[in-house]
Amino acid sequence: MTIKVTVWNEYRHEKTDAEVAAIYPDGIHNAIANYLKTDEQLQVSTAVLDDPEHGLTDDVLQNTDVLLWWGHLAHDEVSDDIVEKVQQRVLDGMGLIVLHSGHASKIFKKLMGTATGTLKWRDTGEIEKIWVIEQGHPIAQGLGEYIEIPKEEMYGERFEIPAPDKLIFISWFEGGEVFRSGCCYERGRGRIFYFRPGHETFPVYHQAEVLQVISNATFWAAASK
Amino acid sequence: MTIKVTVWNEYRHEKTDAEVAAIYPDGIHNAIANYLKTDEQLQVSTAVLDDPEHGLTDDVLQNTDVLLWWGHLAHDEVSDDIVEKVQQRVLDGMGLIVLHSGHASKIFKKLMGTATGTLKWRDTGEIEKIWVIEQGHPIAQGLGEYIEIPKEEMYGERFEIPAPDKLIFISWFEGGEVFRSGCCYERGRGRIFYFRPGHETFPVYHQAEVLQVISNATFWAAASK
Amino acid sequence: MTIKVTVWNEYRHEKTDAEVAAIYPDGIHNAIANYLKTDEQLQVSTAVLDDPEHGLTDDVLQNTDVLLWWGHLAHDEVSDDIVEKVQQRVLDGMGLIVLHSGHASKIFKKLMGTATGTLKWRDTGEIEKIWVIEQGHPIAQGLGEYIEIPKEEMYGERFEIPAPDKLIFISWFEGGEVFRSGCCYERGRGRIFYFRPGHETFPVYHQAEVLQVISNATFWAAASK
Amino acid sequence: MTIKVTVWNEYRHEKTDAEVAAIYPDGIHNAIANYLKTDEQLQVSTAVLDDPEHGLTDDVLQNTDVLLWWGHLAHDEVSDDIVEKVQQRVLDGMGLIVLHSGHASKIFKKLMGTATGTLKWRDTGEIEKIWVIEQGHPIAQGLGEYIEIPKEEMYGERFEIPAPDKLIFISWFEGGEVFRSGCCYERGRGRIFYFRPGHETFPVYHQAEVLQVISNATFWAAASK
Repeated sequence: MTIKVTVWNEYRHEKTDAEVAAIYPDGIHNAIANYLKTDEQLQVSTAVLDDPEHGLTDDVLQNTDVLLWWGHLAHDEVSDDIVEKVQQRVLDGMGLIVLHSGHASKIFKKLMGTATGTLKWRDTGEIEKIWVIEQGHPIAQGLGEYIEIPKEEMYGERFEIPAPDKLIFISWFEGGEVFRSGCCYERGRGRIFYFRPGHETFPVYHQAEVLQVISNATFWAAASK
Repeated sequence: MTIKVTVWNEYRHEKTDAEVAAIYPDGIHNAIANYLKTDEQLQVSTAVLDDPEHGLTDDVLQNTDVLLWWGHLAHDEVSDDIVEKVQQRVLDGMGLIVLHSGHASKIFKKLMGTATGTLKWRDTGEIEKIWVIEQGHPIAQGLGEYIEIPKEEMYGERFEIPAPDKLIFISWFEGGEVFRSGCCYERGRGRIFYFRPGHETFPVYHQAEVLQVISNATFWAAASK
Repeated sequence: MTIKVTVWNEYRHEKTDAEVAAIYPDGIHNAIANYLKTDEQLQVSTAVLDDPEHGLTDDVLQNTDVLLWWGHLAHDEVSDDIVEKVQQRVLDGMGLIVLHSGHASKIFKKLMGTATGTLKWRDTGEIEKIWVIEQGHPIAQGLGEYIEIPKEEMYGERFEIPAPDKLIFISWFEGGEVFRSGCCYERGRGRIFYFRPGHETFPVYHQAEVLQVISNATFWAAASK
Repeated sequence: MTIKVTVWNEYRHEKTDAEVAAIYPDGIHNAIANYLKTDEQLQVSTAVLDDPEHGLTDDVLQNTDVLLWWGHLAHDEVSDDIVEKVQQRVLDGMGLIVLHSGHASKIFKKLMGTATGTLKWRDTGEIEKIWVIEQGHPIAQGLGEYIEIPKEEMYGERFEIPAPDKLIFISWFEGGEVFRSGCCYERGRGRIFYFRPGHETFPVYHQAEVLQVISNATFWAAASK
């Protein structure tokens, strides 16, 4: 079975911030896409905000089994019309993986129905330990008891999401906070996974365990294909 | 403790359809409100679509602990602005009880994030048996094993809702369908209950057990007041 | 990937009741096992109550990825020691599919923590319609809106189970009852699926859609292998 | 409405360990019971392991709306017969609050169906921050964003429990772990709450917020009375 994956990225930080560009010279989308391409079951494309129709034409959406979403600065620039189409595709069975600051994206808010932008944050590059709560879940395959990220932005509770259908990860932060970092949802016929790590100023998407989770989640989200 | 309740009704059928007017001469909202008023812990008001701001001014919303919602013909006439305010109030802790054809209302869609208008229906006045699945839940207090409604409109699965945080009732219909008829959700700080019965051409809101559920749900939804 | 499946059956009715023997001459276990064997990814064995250690030796359990369980008359004859071993294997990641009257088995009670024997029943051979509630779930793949079984024993709510982690099917019965017929649970590292149909006096395990669900559930339950 | 509460304690540490006795001279049960007695809606009794029938006679159980449970050293000394009676009372509607090391008690294991004794622990008296995940839930009433306990025993994931029906609290520990510290379950007609804090060598049950949670949980657990 081939799974058609589209990795969507806002792709702004990388073009304007030298620190980010140094970590992700081809953009966060390509860091992730290049990893996923090493799995021959995955057929991987990318799309970015500044593409026509944000790269998410009807044709692209119809030919996407799993969509990954990274955004931060420009959530408001995403067209409501495209957001509605993405929502409909999820309800029809497309998988959606929302990454890090995508928590505040229009599409995540719309699918959750709550103010998902609401959380604590602090950007000082502290240690994050992502504990595996459901070790038997497909998304946790191949992981140890936790993933340690040496420097990350903190996200803290309360995170205003509906209680996850399945909570896979909980993060511990050096500064004293916790966070529901791996959250599964099923909406309509589609599967949604929110995965917390991935601040643009740290090389999080170059870390093996983080990429492993993204790959696992891609297969999981494709299961209702 | 006094709970401030606002019963909102579209209030159109009752003014244009003699059959409905005969059953609910003062409107569905008043049938429900008059029952709730018999409980001295409840302070009950009503509001309807054609009131200024649909009767849901900022002041009314701020002074509502639990909002009940009945709509059918004119979901589209409800202003997006009011819907957003209601959503925000729910996330801030107001209870919301969505009744019958309110399943397709803007507010319910917005809070659920799915196409909640999607379900089967048939309006032939058939028997509905509403089975109690969680007999220990406050919303089921005082009920027997099931509520039988002699004539109702059928709603059938698949009903496109997120899996309820708690499923209290499942309906059986004479014609062969089933339906998740009592669904609890928690979103933000607020509690939401969807309750299926209540077609306008049958005297469902005059039936004691149905009113009992509405009263129970009002107290449950006020619990995070 | 090969999945090692063990189909366990009490195997008493078939040896003492001519009506049952006519439907399942080789036992319910073989009716199911023979179907599963047609899938080359599945490596299928059977075991029955009257085998030494009920056919569930440590070696068999260690070499089982998914265990299917059908019992009815002789739940009490299953040794507590074996039940504990099965429980431990489930918590360690073995899948378990509990069929029909297996609802009252020791192993299901032990894993659920409730009086799962509690439900209504009536054995008159009535129509059952099993409605698909989660159409995007792997267990529902390939099904239509519902499965109709022309003659079945009725099981009715309230069924004393913990609220399922995911509810896939709800049954409608001709006589007026409903039932949560397809219930997913995750316990420890293992996945559990309860599937209602399968009374011994009706040829339910010869019906294509029922077998399809059992096969789907086998793959689902193996996912944390 | 009066709620009849029984606070059960193993009551061994307090009699053999001077450090514990100094903190809880009348036993952990009385520290909790004395607090609850300040609420006139609660009618509070205590019972301990070494009482005849562990103080949990049929009469006591029938007259208990909510049972609190603290045990640690002597889980195995609790009679299986009493455990079955407590389980049955919970399924019939009695509330149960399991405290701290009660996670490994027979009654909690039996109601959960998993190896709830499984978790990480370290007893060095470190800081615990208990974050409130569901701020609108009755159990969290009156709390701030988190409760800080200056010295506590650490419990860490993975804690082998079924996914809670509602997760209210997540703990952060100084040493790097997280824990699901406030877990709601509904089983049969009964409500169960697991609440983590309470190691015998720290004065945790003298801390106001901890006592507030226990009181809140008592009212919540009585709701299906």
